Amino acid sequence: MCEQITDKNVSSLVEKHDTFIFDCDGVLWNWPHVIPGAVDLLNKLTALGKQIFFVTNNSTKTQDDYAKRFADIGFNAAKKADQVPSDLQAIKTDEVQLDSDITCVISALDLHMSYLKVLKAATHLKRKEVLFLGTNDDASLPTNDEVVMPGAGAVLAAVTAASGRLPTILGKPHTPMWKVIQDEFNLNPTKTVMVGDRLETDIAFGNNQGLTTILVLTGATNESHVNELKEQKTDKSNIPNFYISGVGKLAQLINDSK
Amino acid sequence: MCEQITDKNVSSLVEKHDTFIFDCDGVLWNWPHVIPGAVDLLNKLTALGKQIFFVTNNSTKTQDDYAKRFADIGFNAAKKADQVPSDLQAIKTDEVQLDSDITCVISALDLHMSYLKVLKAATHLKRKEVLFLGTNDDASLPTNDEVVMPGAGAVLAAVTAASGRLPTILGKPHTPMWKVIQDEFNLNPTKTVMVGDRLETDIAFGNNQGLTTILVLTGATNESHVNELKEQKTDKSNIPNFYISGVGKLAQLINDSK
Repeated sequence: MCEQITDKNVSSLVEKHDTFIFDCDGVLWNWPHVIPGAVDLLNKLTALGKQIFFVTNNSTKTQDDYAKRFADIGFNAAKKADQVPSDLQAIKTDEVQLDSDITCVISALDLHMSYLKVLKAATHLKRKEVLFLGTNDDASLPTNDEVVMPGAGAVLAAVTAASGRLPTILGKPHTPMWKVIQDEFNLNPTKTVMVGDRLETDIAFGNNQGLTTILVLTGATNESHVNELKEQKTDKSNIPNFYISGVGKLAQLINDSK
Repeated sequence: MCEQITDKNVSSLVEKHDTFIFDCDGVLWNWPHVIPGAVDLLNKLTALGKQIFFVTNNSTKTQDDYAKRFADIGFNAAKKADQVPSDLQAIKTDEVQLDSDITCVISALDLHMSYLKVLKAATHLKRKEVLFLGTNDDASLPTNDEVVMPGAGAVLAAVTAASGRLPTILGKPHTPMWKVIQDEFNLNPTKTVMVGDRLETDIAFGNNQGLTTILVLTGATNESHVNELKEQKTDKSNIPNFYISGVGKLAQLINDSK
């Protein structure tokens, strides 16, 4: 049901409820323009003894800012919460330089990622004809220490969320990276071996393209993972055709087989 | 199938394939440590007339860097591609200051988001006992101009991807924001109205908590959306109980109903 409010149903609506929760942006104002009648409604509901709350996801103003804003438009709203920091003013959107000649946005690992870069990428992607590519969607980089290094996938997630568009992802395990070398060198997938250490990128990449896949245990995957894999019944895409302790062992076996 | 490579099957494996694709990190090296036998294998396969490709998602080195690296370890790899920029050295992970007293990571809209902040958040979140909160998951902020302003949801997407953890999201349409005011003010959901302009946050928020929901058409949603909603059969979570042109009209109807 989605019923229009009319003079027929408004009284019972008001009588049946004691609390009214309002979103602010787009409901009470499109700042600096206050929606006509907004203050009337708030004061009216207050006069009728209703409780009023304002629930906004806009965390760029402090409680004091909101209290002042309501006072300015003629409604006395009490505040009750800790303050949240405000720095939305730091971005002057009318000063953002955008180039209408852009035909492609490529999201990659970027140690200098910033809000302004994500804003520019998402804005260019508003035009449907702009191509959206991601170098890869690795969530993090392999490191040997205690630090989680965000990967290209973390940057890409931000651009994807802000733009509402889905990228074509070039890197493993996705198809484009295979197509480039297949076309360039006329490769036959059934005669090609993919050797890798990571199930969800390397092995999935090879399996997705119909290559023969070899897992080595010198990197991201160890022997106990392999044992788990052997018992796995459901998702076959990450299961290698072969595994071996490392490339050194493979070299030795090839040498010995002559 | 996931077969171990042995002296029994290695010959047919090599004979049946003409191309070998290698991932690098964790397969040929865990830099600066070269995997024993890696160069042997590459040279052996080359001697056997096999084509070799290196396919890595690690875009932080140039083609020249890789060519030099292969030459240094004793394999002559040709390069064939444009260069990609390299700036991974910009982050010295051993200089990142992490505080083991941190018990909660809160991801919010941050106009100063950076790689280092995402890295720190994801690293803290490696400890399972650290709470992961998001203020909200709004993908973008409402703006009147041509620019897409990324919302807290874009920042949160980066932290979620890098950490591999799912946050508890505080803002609309999620439950925590309701629980706070319900508990503080002892609200009765069946006697509470939520007024909002956005279906996926405001209206879903109210519906999720069992409130009566009123959609106004002064913000993110217009009359044609409402007509689409009325015909929508599947997802009911975003359909308001009532709609009205704006709060001014609601004030007027309430006034007139006295």
